[in-house]
Amino acid sequence: MNPEPVRIFVTGGTFDKEYNELTGALFFKDTHLREMLRLGRSRVKVSITTLMMIDSLDMTDSDRTRVVEQCARAAESRILITHGTDTMVETARAVAAAATPGKTIVLTGAMVPYAFGSSDGLFNLGSALSFVQALPPGVFIAMNGRCFPWNHVRKNRETGVFEEAP
Amino acid sequence: MNPEPVRIFVTGGTFDKEYNELTGALFFKDTHLREMLRLGRSRVKVSITTLMMIDSLDMTDSDRTRVVEQCARAAESRILITHGTDTMVETARAVAAAATPGKTIVLTGAMVPYAFGSSDGLFNLGSALSFVQALPPGVFIAMNGRCFPWNHVRKNRETGVFEEAP
Amino acid sequence: MNPEPVRIFVTGGTFDKEYNELTGALFFKDTHLREMLRLGRSRVKVSITTLMMIDSLDMTDSDRTRVVEQCARAAESRILITHGTDTMVETARAVAAAATPGKTIVLTGAMVPYAFGSSDGLFNLGSALSFVQALPPGVFIAMNGRCFPWNHVRKNRETGVFEEAP
Amino acid sequence: MNPEPVRIFVTGGTFDKEYNELTGALFFKDTHLREMLRLGRSRVKVSITTLMMIDSLDMTDSDRTRVVEQCARAAESRILITHGTDTMVETARAVAAAATPGKTIVLTGAMVPYAFGSSDGLFNLGSALSFVQALPPGVFIAMNGRCFPWNHVRKNRETGVFEEAP
Repeated sequence: MNPEPVRIFVTGGTFDKEYNELTGALFFKDTHLREMLRLGRSRVKVSITTLMMIDSLDMTDSDRTRVVEQCARAAESRILITHGTDTMVETARAVAAAATPGKTIVLTGAMVPYAFGSSDGLFNLGSALSFVQALPPGVFIAMNGRCFPWNHVRKNRETGVFEEAP
Repeated sequence: MNPEPVRIFVTGGTFDKEYNELTGALFFKDTHLREMLRLGRSRVKVSITTLMMIDSLDMTDSDRTRVVEQCARAAESRILITHGTDTMVETARAVAAAATPGKTIVLTGAMVPYAFGSSDGLFNLGSALSFVQALPPGVFIAMNGRCFPWNHVRKNRETGVFEEAP
Repeated sequence: MNPEPVRIFVTGGTFDKEYNELTGALFFKDTHLREMLRLGRSRVKVSITTLMMIDSLDMTDSDRTRVVEQCARAAESRILITHGTDTMVETARAVAAAATPGKTIVLTGAMVPYAFGSSDGLFNLGSALSFVQALPPGVFIAMNGRCFPWNHVRKNRETGVFEEAP
Repeated sequence: MNPEPVRIFVTGGTFDKEYNELTGALFFKDTHLREMLRLGRSRVKVSITTLMMIDSLDMTDSDRTRVVEQCARAAESRILITHGTDTMVETARAVAAAATPGKTIVLTGAMVPYAFGSSDGLFNLGSALSFVQALPPGVFIAMNGRCFPWNHVRKNRETGVFEEAP
């Protein structure tokens, strides 16, 4: 496979949230991504950049534009974006609209913070990292072990599951 | 993507080992695969069959033949095999030799049992399940976040890492 | 030691909180107490009653009175109460005021939910269950591995640690 | 309670075992004790010394004598010893025979390594640390949430549980 590194852009989301024991609230410190890749004993060459650490419900147009521009500017042809699940589809749409030809871009996240016991984070990271290496150019969402083209997916708000949409 | 289920054959390996607190030895009970797919909130249609639960160093030719035959007989065109890492390449070779045209077969395992805290199992499962959905027909090994054609991979015994081999 | 069971009253608190992945909020389902005692391979005879499952900041006088009455009514002479840390001292004071002679009553809780990876819950449960078996009659708080008489302890809100108070 | 530190002697045992992913065997590296006390948010003053890191089935008379001498020599009046469960009673007997008047000595261990997911280690540590602060002088074993005088306990080899013995 392509020996060039995979670019990983971290934007936060539930994936990276932590529990503040003094206030009982969830908040962000540093990304757990490197620790997760170590746990998975990953040997994929990656280049990690934290663009922001926010809940995707708090993403502004300006934040989203930043993500889009970083994808366009990246030298790598394979990009993985960790992102909150609530507006992941919106960001995927914005990235696709920027028309980054020749790039395979995969967004993923988690329904439960990696820091908590029952997280899907590690599974999703393995999944997305593999999809980004195997898929042809395009923009995709990788959740629930599946992958979806950006324009045929939605998050089912009742179940928290990502599914195909016409 | 293909709506047909992914067939999963469980053969054991470190992936599914457990700790026996009375004897201090590692042993097999039931596969943790379903529990892991639940944790990953996987929505991929799968059909799981436990063929055996053994350490791959204990695999006999007869065991390996069983795996090969099951792959040939399976109606599904995408097959994931969980397997011990020590002889995963041998089994991949045997499966490839049986010439199962039109099938994408991916083998994966773990260096640390899923039942232990620091396991790569969940990451590898997400990885392999994604590779098996995205790759073209052929036999592959998915470890360390990467995937390798069956005939160009080996397990580095010093580091425990899978790498390309000529 | 006393062969009579230890009575355990569950009132909730961070100890038993869980993460709701659809809303991102923390909430209560069932107590994890039995599962924690199983994990600790506890062989202490216990009798568990869930009185309520609330954040101790939401405890009303009526809730607190309920806890006090249950302690007075209990046939057992050793009682463990799991409780939110924020008003644990208030409840200890109310229980002590009800003058339950001959009873050893220990309150404990957790700074991080047991359901999350980095919880002090299991350690505190082992600690409190041991203090309640070893201490003479009285009302105590067991946190941070230590135990304090009810009238000489406070929760330091800056650090989240329980310490002696005059 | 006594402000003098609790002395902790680490001898190894299943409590501190780790999994070697290259060989599949269990082995010892450093004790996890400090990490466990941090997780429990313990504020008990302790002074930790690793005497040895061995399986208690491998303890020789010389090793056991070392433990006994360290207990006798310790300035502290409260001592916690982490130990393999298989010969914990033998070591307790040897320590008691050395007649260390005025000292409360508690031995504990674990049936499953702390490094594995389903360990009783953290619960036992909380339990033993509390018993050693609350009990009068003597030598005790703290396992399964209970505590036993050194001369009235045995490990049931069938169940792995510690129970009273005449």
